[in-house]
Amino acid sequence: MIRIGIYGYGNLARGVEAAIKKNDDMELVAVFTRREPETVKVNTENVKVVKATDVTKYKNDIDVLVICGGSRTDLPVQTPELVKYFNVIDSFDTHAHVSEHYQNVEKNAFETKHIGVISMGWDPGMFSLNRAIMNAVLPDGNDYTFWGKGVSQGHSDAIRRIKGVKDARQYTCPVQSALDAVRNGENPKLTTREKHTRLCYVVADPKDYDRIENEIKTMPDYFSDYDTTVNFISQEELDKNHKGLPHGGFVIRTGETSNGVKHVIEYSLKLDSNPEFTGSVIVAYARGAYRLAKRGECGARTVFDFAPRDIAKCSYEELLKHTL
Amino acid sequence: MIRIGIYGYGNLARGVEAAIKKNDDMELVAVFTRREPETVKVNTENVKVVKATDVTKYKNDIDVLVICGGSRTDLPVQTPELVKYFNVIDSFDTHAHVSEHYQNVEKNAFETKHIGVISMGWDPGMFSLNRAIMNAVLPDGNDYTFWGKGVSQGHSDAIRRIKGVKDARQYTCPVQSALDAVRNGENPKLTTREKHTRLCYVVADPKDYDRIENEIKTMPDYFSDYDTTVNFISQEELDKNHKGLPHGGFVIRTGETSNGVKHVIEYSLKLDSNPEFTGSVIVAYARGAYRLAKRGECGARTVFDFAPRDIAKCSYEELLKHTL
Repeated sequence: MIRIGIYGYGNLARGVEAAIKKNDDMELVAVFTRREPETVKVNTENVKVVKATDVTKYKNDIDVLVICGGSRTDLPVQTPELVKYFNVIDSFDTHAHVSEHYQNVEKNAFETKHIGVISMGWDPGMFSLNRAIMNAVLPDGNDYTFWGKGVSQGHSDAIRRIKGVKDARQYTCPVQSALDAVRNGENPKLTTREKHTRLCYVVADPKDYDRIENEIKTMPDYFSDYDTTVNFISQEELDKNHKGLPHGGFVIRTGETSNGVKHVIEYSLKLDSNPEFTGSVIVAYARGAYRLAKRGECGARTVFDFAPRDIAKCSYEELLKHTL
Repeated sequence: MIRIGIYGYGNLARGVEAAIKKNDDMELVAVFTRREPETVKVNTENVKVVKATDVTKYKNDIDVLVICGGSRTDLPVQTPELVKYFNVIDSFDTHAHVSEHYQNVEKNAFETKHIGVISMGWDPGMFSLNRAIMNAVLPDGNDYTFWGKGVSQGHSDAIRRIKGVKDARQYTCPVQSALDAVRNGENPKLTTREKHTRLCYVVADPKDYDRIENEIKTMPDYFSDYDTTVNFISQEELDKNHKGLPHGGFVIRTGETSNGVKHVIEYSLKLDSNPEFTGSVIVAYARGAYRLAKRGECGARTVFDFAPRDIAKCSYEELLKHTL
């Protein structure tokens, strides 16, 4: 059994916890929290909830520690620190600072002989993997990534900060005509904004509808440059139809292998729950981290470093027989 | 530069040759043929055409030899033999005999310290890679593979063997309603036959149309259990519209991460030319074979053994910056 620890206990951590239950070669040993442990109720029986400050006491009881902090302030500190004591995996997704994060994790992981996997999930993660493979097998071409339909927490929060808004949920939606043009190999030049629209569900007092809709649609950075639709609904309807965290998207590469001979490669995800799928990917690569560490590797790693056999639960013989 | 040799010179070999031109870290050194070398005209300047029996004379001039023989009789002999002298890669696709082929290549590759990559292309190959990753990241679910729309050489040949048929082309087509049911997460139980229809274009004398159509539709194994459509067309129309070798398909995995929380992962290919895309995949993994050999690995390998970084043309730093 691969012994997993979870550091931090929010939405993503609960997704990781659910994923561990789907993998019978793994067990959850402990959840580490900055809150008072007595106040945290986890979804797995017989799992210890431990103060985050006591985490190093468990260094001999955990094979891989899944760090579930946020990318902005938590992970840049937590991952380089915790990799001194554990093999770790995180979901760091601030693209602009990936190289820096990688270097910080690499240094401490290498010195202490641990594996530190960073930026795992679906984007970065599965989408990155597919972009890399697509580029290698179709070098003369163009990449496209579309996101959605899915809930953007950041945009939902931005709406909720508007005066008079009681609750809100924002969906990022891919533009069908842009997707179609890409799939047809038309190689359109598209900004992220031309590829997506924004769909908002807002709970507010009817007397504020006009003002709120205007404030949303003119909000710089978040909405002003997008085709934005605002629907006012009741709290009941929002709770009933919009409380999930669905997401997904498309990675498409189009290109030629010789003059006029075109190909389209597409990878897509349609996810009922962003944190549960992200957690499920992380758990598969936690298995990979365990195996790399077992064979004596150390240092920082990303999705680019793992072969399929490193993360597969089944044996290589089974892969040859049933998956090849 | 990675020095590539091509062994055998048919459709796939020309696809490999085209792909080498798209990768500026590679060069084609020689083409080996069982025909008289003078009779073989290749598409690359300054490339030697050499008798297949002289191949071992080039063992110090070639980093990876791409073996372009057929799976039925050529590759089971050629790959285990040639891996004694070269790092090799083939496209062996007889699923029932993969383990045996792997063992034969493994033994000789290991003894002579070479890398022998087998079963590369898109299925087996890219589809296998995606099935393996999808299974790892979504362990509780179901796999589906659909092929087409694409030309099946075997079925086209079967039609051409019917008396009175002057020419023919057969397309395997996925059934849209089956695809939709899978994407909707309905988990239908489908045989390959329920997932595909067969579309035939046939050139013949009008007086034979009825008999030929009947013979096609009742042909056991090939057509009798499928929904088969036969269109009679002129040789001119066949030459104009049906001389390409397009193909493609879909790998879909649907599953749950917790009770009722569903996800759909889909990978699809739409290819103008089956042999050119297959060749392009093989060339990317020839790079991988070169790198594995460079770092001292030896033995048989498949798509399951390569991490994205092993096949990417760009550096790891570039992957982190632009692809993650």
